[in-house]
Amino acid sequence: MAEVDAARAVAGLKEIRRLTEDADGAQRVAWTDTWITARDWLAGQLAEIDGVTVERDAAGNTWATAPGAGERFVIIGGHLDSVPDGGWLDGALNVVAGLEVLRALAPEDRSFTLKLVDWADEEGARFGRSLLGSSAAAGTLDPAAVRGLTDRDGTALPDALAAHDVDLDAMRDAGAALKGALAYLELHIEQGPVLEQLDKPLGAVLGTFGVQRHKVVFTGAHAHAGASPMHLRRDAYLAAARSSLAWRDDAAARDDVRATTGVVKVTPGIVTAFNGTCEVSLDQRALDADVLADMLAQAKGAAERIAAEEGCTVAWEQVWEIEPIPFDEGLIELAAAAIEDVAGTSERLPSGPLHDAAEMARVMPTVMVFVKSLGGVSHTKEEDTPEADLELSVRALYELTRRTLAWAEEAA
Amino acid sequence: MAEVDAARAVAGLKEIRRLTEDADGAQRVAWTDTWITARDWLAGQLAEIDGVTVERDAAGNTWATAPGAGERFVIIGGHLDSVPDGGWLDGALNVVAGLEVLRALAPEDRSFTLKLVDWADEEGARFGRSLLGSSAAAGTLDPAAVRGLTDRDGTALPDALAAHDVDLDAMRDAGAALKGALAYLELHIEQGPVLEQLDKPLGAVLGTFGVQRHKVVFTGAHAHAGASPMHLRRDAYLAAARSSLAWRDDAAARDDVRATTGVVKVTPGIVTAFNGTCEVSLDQRALDADVLADMLAQAKGAAERIAAEEGCTVAWEQVWEIEPIPFDEGLIELAAAAIEDVAGTSERLPSGPLHDAAEMARVMPTVMVFVKSLGGVSHTKEEDTPEADLELSVRALYELTRRTLAWAEEAA
Repeated sequence: MAEVDAARAVAGLKEIRRLTEDADGAQRVAWTDTWITARDWLAGQLAEIDGVTVERDAAGNTWATAPGAGERFVIIGGHLDSVPDGGWLDGALNVVAGLEVLRALAPEDRSFTLKLVDWADEEGARFGRSLLGSSAAAGTLDPAAVRGLTDRDGTALPDALAAHDVDLDAMRDAGAALKGALAYLELHIEQGPVLEQLDKPLGAVLGTFGVQRHKVVFTGAHAHAGASPMHLRRDAYLAAARSSLAWRDDAAARDDVRATTGVVKVTPGIVTAFNGTCEVSLDQRALDADVLADMLAQAKGAAERIAAEEGCTVAWEQVWEIEPIPFDEGLIELAAAAIEDVAGTSERLPSGPLHDAAEMARVMPTVMVFVKSLGGVSHTKEEDTPEADLELSVRALYELTRRTLAWAEEAA
Repeated sequence: MAEVDAARAVAGLKEIRRLTEDADGAQRVAWTDTWITARDWLAGQLAEIDGVTVERDAAGNTWATAPGAGERFVIIGGHLDSVPDGGWLDGALNVVAGLEVLRALAPEDRSFTLKLVDWADEEGARFGRSLLGSSAAAGTLDPAAVRGLTDRDGTALPDALAAHDVDLDAMRDAGAALKGALAYLELHIEQGPVLEQLDKPLGAVLGTFGVQRHKVVFTGAHAHAGASPMHLRRDAYLAAARSSLAWRDDAAARDDVRATTGVVKVTPGIVTAFNGTCEVSLDQRALDADVLADMLAQAKGAAERIAAEEGCTVAWEQVWEIEPIPFDEGLIELAAAAIEDVAGTSERLPSGPLHDAAEMARVMPTVMVFVKSLGGVSHTKEEDTPEADLELSVRALYELTRRTLAWAEEAA
């Protein structure tokens, strides 16, 4: 039986880093020349593997196929694109690990086909729409909703796509590439601190959080810092401060959810007056839709009560929402077992960030494997993972792929 | 015995309003033509009063003198200058009420002289230095500290002063005008909501608050809203929010003090991350220096404790401070009695904002009378007080002036 060459994957990552990083970090932004440089490197690697064919779908996603006895297939997916000034691992790890798994398994007899996909524009860094290629394939991309997007130089998304031979209105034809898919597997750095804090290298991912994102505006009435007695004040900032604390301490008092106040804007925002308005954002995340709905209801109730107590009013405006996307229970078991096998220990954790896997989970059984991120840091050149853990992660993906192929065979 | 013509004072205020207000409010900004228009109106009024002489001191303050048997004198002071887009009463009320008191008392035999001063540039609206004329007279103005001030058009303060025949370096010579002063009296709108809430037209002012003003910076570490579990966060905004609440609820848990967080700046301040730094302002005010010092110590202790609990650090930087300036106890009694006499009820309250009276209190017995502000609103064209209350306030100033002259006689 072949073994995966995990060290070669790490070497490949370093080569991509050399090709696409400058003093500020990785510059593999989708639809740019540096991104193409990375994709060309991948094409060269795939060309070395006997029997593997490479195609591009209507959304610009690259597919490498190692045929098996049957045409139905298991997918390993990742993305070579990065944010500007990004890290060496986000996205690229998945692709390079998948490349080595494909290299190891291509010569073997298999009942099913194995495919590696390099998704186009996971980050959405240039035009603001993430998961572009995978959502086109999953059928959730609405061309009309992104047609007007422009980059900071004013270039329109349809023009940038056309320069790479992608027709926005035909992108959803990429869905044809998923016909016959059995399962989707993705390895990614965690981009958070959980595994490092637990001192575990790897974890099986339970799914991606659902998100409820709101703009919340508290309104009181500003007045002079000296002239207004405390008991007559209608201080919108203090109403927001109490609410933000309630959103954390009460509405998000569980280990497996998140609540974040990131935007805080006060008016008038000067030293000599308390504030008449305070706009904050509330980003709530949970893996369970009912839990998320309950968190939102609790948060609204707390803000109403607190605003009234502070002589203020509060208005909510939904900015964005996405439902929780749980991964496949059977594949989570396989991933946990594969991780246990290579690392001696495993962990199950939700994903805070979205991934292409969230789009795939809509249309087929899906799971992800996380490898720990040092300091929980990502989207910066400081992003890092010890090489020993990277190698473990490649072996875990290899084990998971083999088990998934066997699982598909049993199910057939 | 003469009586003061309070209705004439209200008519005078309306005339100044007509002369100096546009669609956005009063425009009597010091060292501008519109301010001179108001001052010319005052000069015309004073010229009508037999025996009253008018002079200008080295700081540009206007002094009107109604001589008595003795040269020592009681001062009524106010300021005609306003902020841009200001109200009709802030400053002008004091001057016009004083004008009518002077008109009423000028013909009477008095042991002491009575003076009305129209201070130059109380607001500091154009160059950012308030109490300019009165601080020059009191000797607390440091010419070097204001020499570099410019307005938004780049005009330097010394040049604007020179255009009005005021030499910055000679301004403190205005102190000569205070030689022989016995007491200083000032009527002003409250600019706060206290009297209106108490349904009282007038109050005797206990003094102006001492102020401790700090910039407080909380530092944690920002990270992704989805990837970071709640218990691993070092959220600088939530540390600041808890501290701001403690500064109000614990450190300022008295009726007679103030604590205000006005500036709130978070970094990175985006929806998808909690904040690594949060800068806030803390403006604390009290009429008692020991109370103020204790409030500051409590606030610092609370912030240290909370920052540590939230995994953050906190740094304090003093921005400004001024000691409390209590008014004269004897004059406070006289003011309360005068108010009780004309309004049937009185109240004693501190002043949140500073006034020229704070400068005078450094050098002579001083007291102020406040008349209620509708909605506690000032520095805007919505600033207002019912005419009946304005008339009461003019009569109270008249009563207070007569009692102060009698009090000075007793003391002599």
